[in-house]
Amino acid sequence: MTGPGPDKINLAEKLARFGDHWHPRLVGALNGQHVKLVKLKGEFVWHQHEHEDELFLVIAGSFRMEFRDRSVELNAGELLIVPRGVEHRPVADNECSVLLFEPAGTLNTGDAESVLTRNELEWI
Amino acid sequence: MTGPGPDKINLAEKLARFGDHWHPRLVGALNGQHVKLVKLKGEFVWHQHEHEDELFLVIAGSFRMEFRDRSVELNAGELLIVPRGVEHRPVADNECSVLLFEPAGTLNTGDAESVLTRNELEWI
Repeated sequence: MTGPGPDKINLAEKLARFGDHWHPRLVGALNGQHVKLVKLKGEFVWHQHEHEDELFLVIAGSFRMEFRDRSVELNAGELLIVPRGVEHRPVADNECSVLLFEPAGTLNTGDAESVLTRNELEWI
Repeated sequence: MTGPGPDKINLAEKLARFGDHWHPRLVGALNGQHVKLVKLKGEFVWHQHEHEDELFLVIAGSFRMEFRDRSVELNAGELLIVPRGVEHRPVADNECSVLLFEPAGTLNTGDAESVLTRNELEWI
């Protein structure tokens, strides 16, 4: 590419820039929505988002999305949309890299503010 | 998974359900946005979207996004966000499978209605 303008984002290259878990990074924005990358390992907190639907797309590894009455196992190349108001908890037995797509301003812990809450997001 | 509720979408399984080119299928909806899958091969039409930013994520293969003053080569695992108002034309020398993320109602050919325009989208 020459000159300024839209440039591509290589997901593997972006993922290589950080190693901590449950700490989403911003990689894109469009139509009031954010594209984020996050690495999961272990159990997150139960939470829900009152006003936001959330998309999880597995880039590498696998994780389990727990709901109160069931769970869904997600592998690379699979995505899940969690509707607003639905309690969920991601659990990853091994490290898993995920692309998130959700409205700008969506808080990672939703209604369950905790030490895991990330109020400020960095672009990578 | 048992019982109703959010279920996962396997992109490869969805892609196996159709074979035609430049004909996006719907696989998800959230926050007024649509998630689509499309197979590209050959040259599309030059167009722009007046009000919609568009995200292209390559799932398999590669393609080239042409702009009026440059082009960007995209491979699997790479994404590109084309801002509203920017003329673009996807070109794929070989078949390429792409995930699209854009506002519900976005027309594939934008301001360049043609035989390639898909007014009605099917869920797969």
